Amino acid sequence: MNWFNNLIKPKRIYLDYAAATPVLPEVRQVMEKYWSRDFYNPSAIYKEGLKVKREVEECRIRLGRTLGVTPVGIIFTSSGTESDNLAILGSFEEALKTIKKPHIIISAIEHSAVVAAAQEIVRRGGEMSVVQVDKEGVISLEMLKKLLKKNTFLISIGLANNEIGTIQPISKVGRLVSEFRKNNKSSYPYLHTDASTAPSYLNVDISSLQADFLTLDGSKIYGPKGVGILALRRDVKLRPLTLGGGQEGGRRAGTLNPALISGFTLAFEIAMRDRAREASRLETFRKYFIEQVTKHLPKAIINGSENNHLPNIVSVSLPASPAGRPGTLAELILLKLDQAGVMVSVGSACSLDERVSGSPVITALGKKDLAESTLRFSFGRFTTVKEFKEAVKIFCLIGESVLK
Amino acid sequence: MNWFNNLIKPKRIYLDYAAATPVLPEVRQVMEKYWSRDFYNPSAIYKEGLKVKREVEECRIRLGRTLGVTPVGIIFTSSGTESDNLAILGSFEEALKTIKKPHIIISAIEHSAVVAAAQEIVRRGGEMSVVQVDKEGVISLEMLKKLLKKNTFLISIGLANNEIGTIQPISKVGRLVSEFRKNNKSSYPYLHTDASTAPSYLNVDISSLQADFLTLDGSKIYGPKGVGILALRRDVKLRPLTLGGGQEGGRRAGTLNPALISGFTLAFEIAMRDRAREASRLETFRKYFIEQVTKHLPKAIINGSENNHLPNIVSVSLPASPAGRPGTLAELILLKLDQAGVMVSVGSACSLDERVSGSPVITALGKKDLAESTLRFSFGRFTTVKEFKEAVKIFCLIGESVLK
Repeated sequence: MNWFNNLIKPKRIYLDYAAATPVLPEVRQVMEKYWSRDFYNPSAIYKEGLKVKREVEECRIRLGRTLGVTPVGIIFTSSGTESDNLAILGSFEEALKTIKKPHIIISAIEHSAVVAAAQEIVRRGGEMSVVQVDKEGVISLEMLKKLLKKNTFLISIGLANNEIGTIQPISKVGRLVSEFRKNNKSSYPYLHTDASTAPSYLNVDISSLQADFLTLDGSKIYGPKGVGILALRRDVKLRPLTLGGGQEGGRRAGTLNPALISGFTLAFEIAMRDRAREASRLETFRKYFIEQVTKHLPKAIINGSENNHLPNIVSVSLPASPAGRPGTLAELILLKLDQAGVMVSVGSACSLDERVSGSPVITALGKKDLAESTLRFSFGRFTTVKEFKEAVKIFCLIGESVLK
Repeated sequence: MNWFNNLIKPKRIYLDYAAATPVLPEVRQVMEKYWSRDFYNPSAIYKEGLKVKREVEECRIRLGRTLGVTPVGIIFTSSGTESDNLAILGSFEEALKTIKKPHIIISAIEHSAVVAAAQEIVRRGGEMSVVQVDKEGVISLEMLKKLLKKNTFLISIGLANNEIGTIQPISKVGRLVSEFRKNNKSSYPYLHTDASTAPSYLNVDISSLQADFLTLDGSKIYGPKGVGILALRRDVKLRPLTLGGGQEGGRRAGTLNPALISGFTLAFEIAMRDRAREASRLETFRKYFIEQVTKHLPKAIINGSENNHLPNIVSVSLPASPAGRPGTLAELILLKLDQAGVMVSVGSACSLDERVSGSPVITALGKKDLAESTLRFSFGRFTTVKEFKEAVKIFCLIGESVLK
């Protein structure tokens, strides 16, 4: 038994790591001293203030080194959602200076923060295009190429989808973007990628991804909630969303938060350290899940990509039974799983609408009829073989009863 | 000795409570369970998710009750700075629907977040007026009345200034605003007050203040950094600054943060509980400070209001000596104090410019020549009589050497 399974109630199995991760004990510990002892305002100029400021700046250096940006290329925010909004709305406001009707391209399966920020751009006089995905959820590079226009200021495509786990060919998009910029002698478009789901399993170095902006979130990498980063390459200019103090190079006002920043930084470094091991360990879990479900629930459909996927997410659709309970099947199963002790999710926790109209991600895969009968299982660092097998067994039993 | 003085290094005296407060042990404790045990995403719909969601909603109820708003009138943000921006920019965007050139009025001594957000409004096509203050820092109600126009959508005036401690007659402004609205049959202007400095000493009930919006910040009330609230009266509509999930009634996207929210709520309740006692205790400290300084440094000038002030802030200006070190006198004294073990500040920690051009608050008092030679002493919950007397003695000695 590990500490985590001792903490959560006995006989409960947590398979919703894509929605939230517990804070690692060592991360909690590194934050601890900042609450009541080194609580000083990092903008204060006496010894103690300067010390915590220096510690924050060291975090920036450590993160920048791994992400392939200079320390000034790290902006600390309050969440991945804020980072997405800052990248999209902040660069839109700057683009307005040189582009009449700035145009953004997002994929059909983006996180609600990206979708909503892109829609806000349309409200503010910009344009938006959506690049479709194939049945595995991979974007069409051909279509993306056709959508690129002279007024395109930003492409925002998530590195790995948080509902179906599909990984996008971001570096290929980056090459395409570079070429377009070169041909048009323009500094636009920029490429933004929300990589919040990725650091525990994938390389998130901005240079190898060939991206200009990258979003991360503490609560997805065993760090605290309330902190994210936006990493920027090159001399990208942004208008801030919140104005005031000169923090973050004038790009994000608000008192620096040494506790959350140091917690985020350590969590990220631990993710880097354990990445290869965790990725291969969880891949075997995923394989087992799919084998068992395919065997016991032949009508079930596994969504996502066979070759390009996160190791810790399985999205599975159960076609509605003839009796049919449209709109509620996923929730019905989720409730039964909850009663049986298994915690999973119907999709992104960040989208209200999904509970009403089903997952837009599943719809984008061309499976509209399954959008309301799809569940996401996501596992992680503390998932044990024993509990995982138990959960799969419970799911198969419930699935059989629902499908028969 | 209290726990706090055992924590900070021996022989150091913290007199910068207006810049940051240490988190109370009981607040740290209430946050603790949410990091690694009850870390669930409050949007998840299994038992554990629903439980943390309920706990967050209970915080909203508890805060609303004390602040005089309904639970839906509490928006959790990441800081006072974000709350100020949300109130100002968010209501501006809504005002644009019915007012051609929305006009904002702020006072001449607002926090940099309010100033910068008001300037952003001008950039976005609105108008801005500044109501001047008298030599004690109190706004002119007469001038405010004259500044009110049909297109005024918002008045934003801080309840108590964080540099000089002057308290504004917000409820009088509220009455003035009500009357104006009634005469013009308009729902505008709204009244916003940043009350971040106030909860430990003043009543912050929105109804008695007759305000429509109220900003608070966790890091100023012995709660955690990284959380603030914007409380709203009535059916005030806002456009969010960050878009995405449907959290906070669609007014602020991002995963709810049970740790910081519960910490903020408890800190606020403790501030309410101890308010009267702390206010009168610290008032005697303030009196002592002023007595001693007046006696030992007759040239020193105490800024702020004699009758309407926070009990825990003293702003003191030392006229430059004939030798004169313009631009650096305050920092020079601050450095000497730091070396002698006393931590104070030259003004708001949130404003970069101040270090260059001196405090805009002192300038607004008509004391431009003192703007660069002013220090803020702010004390709080853990300040002891003994250390305070020691610090005052040290300051007087340093002041004497500088002024002679």
